[in-house]
Amino acid sequence: MVINLHPTQEQIIEFCHSNTIIDTLNVDVVPMDDGSVHLELLVEEKHTNFCDICHGGVLTTMADTAMGIVCNERNKSVVTMNLTITFIRPVNKLVKITAVPRILHDGHKTMVCECDMVDETNKLFAKAQATFFVIGDFIKME
Amino acid sequence: MVINLHPTQEQIIEFCHSNTIIDTLNVDVVPMDDGSVHLELLVEEKHTNFCDICHGGVLTTMADTAMGIVCNERNKSVVTMNLTITFIRPVNKLVKITAVPRILHDGHKTMVCECDMVDETNKLFAKAQATFFVIGDFIKME
Amino acid sequence: MVINLHPTQEQIIEFCHSNTIIDTLNVDVVPMDDGSVHLELLVEEKHTNFCDICHGGVLTTMADTAMGIVCNERNKSVVTMNLTITFIRPVNKLVKITAVPRILHDGHKTMVCECDMVDETNKLFAKAQATFFVIGDFIKME
Amino acid sequence: MVINLHPTQEQIIEFCHSNTIIDTLNVDVVPMDDGSVHLELLVEEKHTNFCDICHGGVLTTMADTAMGIVCNERNKSVVTMNLTITFIRPVNKLVKITAVPRILHDGHKTMVCECDMVDETNKLFAKAQATFFVIGDFIKME
Repeated sequence: MVINLHPTQEQIIEFCHSNTIIDTLNVDVVPMDDGSVHLELLVEEKHTNFCDICHGGVLTTMADTAMGIVCNERNKSVVTMNLTITFIRPVNKLVKITAVPRILHDGHKTMVCECDMVDETNKLFAKAQATFFVIGDFIKME
Repeated sequence: MVINLHPTQEQIIEFCHSNTIIDTLNVDVVPMDDGSVHLELLVEEKHTNFCDICHGGVLTTMADTAMGIVCNERNKSVVTMNLTITFIRPVNKLVKITAVPRILHDGHKTMVCECDMVDETNKLFAKAQATFFVIGDFIKME
Repeated sequence: MVINLHPTQEQIIEFCHSNTIIDTLNVDVVPMDDGSVHLELLVEEKHTNFCDICHGGVLTTMADTAMGIVCNERNKSVVTMNLTITFIRPVNKLVKITAVPRILHDGHKTMVCECDMVDETNKLFAKAQATFFVIGDFIKME
Repeated sequence: MVINLHPTQEQIIEFCHSNTIIDTLNVDVVPMDDGSVHLELLVEEKHTNFCDICHGGVLTTMADTAMGIVCNERNKSVVTMNLTITFIRPVNKLVKITAVPRILHDGHKTMVCECDMVDETNKLFAKAQATFFVIGDFIKME
């Protein structure tokens, strides 16, 4: 018998903050009305590179975490095997950037996801694609 | 006439810190005896993900910046077009991780680099590959 | 004055066949009713790997070419700088696979595309993402 | 008890040809004096793209297969999960290109490899990086 467990929004939010880097970088963990959880970032001085725009590594950190979250929402606990990100436009300070992840493949052993990094007008600033290794269930049964 | 300018170690170090994220993440900018500059990180709680290991986004931030630096050392100012990183082993807290970048192609318009992320025993924890767009000279002539 | 030239479907089809590898691999160049051009492949023995399924390199060849075509349709002549592909499901012999490319960024110097590799039921078998360098106009003005 | 089996050069060569695409593309499977096996290609018209140079998909096919071979040499049978390739220089017709693969990580469940695509002077034309899923032993025990 397969019991299909769905983590609650609260569990997902708590999980996000268990990634300490998310708080180090001031990434906002935002509960959505549809039950999902979004990662958002208001770009500040602390996130910038030498061009005074958001460092690509910060966008990568958000994309990676956001893709992990959609895996968790399917009750899979995952680690990232590899990730590719293409940077399309500079993300200036004070821009609010949101990670919009999507599952491409939900396998038993691996998951494949992609993630759009967009602003409030839905303009695309970067796009990531990654493969994850499934290490177990997100919700541990007793 | 082509003047081949070489940035000084001091210029490279100053440049590294102009990437504010490097200081936000406590990445050490270390001058080496051979004139080059290394990025090193002692992994702390603030860098971790839910597994209590260094978040892949932190390694990506280091690798991206370190690859930019070797481009700068060739007097090219660059922005990252895209980056791929493969995560090989978990990087635990208190591990000191170093970015070891290498230029694969030094073109007029683009540069291609790779970067090993290694510990003090030279064990490989992650490997990145990236393409950079050359936006101009690193040292601006008057 | 900017003249916006649109290559005709015939020009695109002719271009596809100027990639000799497309004919070497028996990839079909299919004109669509909406004016676009699709690359399709009926997987045969000649395309297979040791598992007797379509070799990933064949899917990559199709995806790369198909992404180039959508750039051409915007009147840009492009070369591939780099490409990432994730293989999701095995593509068996006699499956008809179609490349569905999409432009993510249409810049003056570079273009970013992605490409779904799907079967006739629209099931996703592989997904590619690539960055292209714009080398000039697709239609050369006299 | 762990028996460490090493495939013979003959087994590796036979395996290479079980990838039918390798013969479709006229890739040479070359036994080396050190016991390893190289993939080489003399670029012909049949491999070219619209620029009359070797199509990137052909280089990817070679790189992917060559990385699989070094995994086989460790007695692992593998399938490619994803692959990134950066194209550095055009490969003209009549150039002889060789795939030089290297293992970055030899894990129980996954392997990570990279591959240089070089000419006879060892000049680098493209570089690939890929993650492989281990599906079993290369040499099946009775």
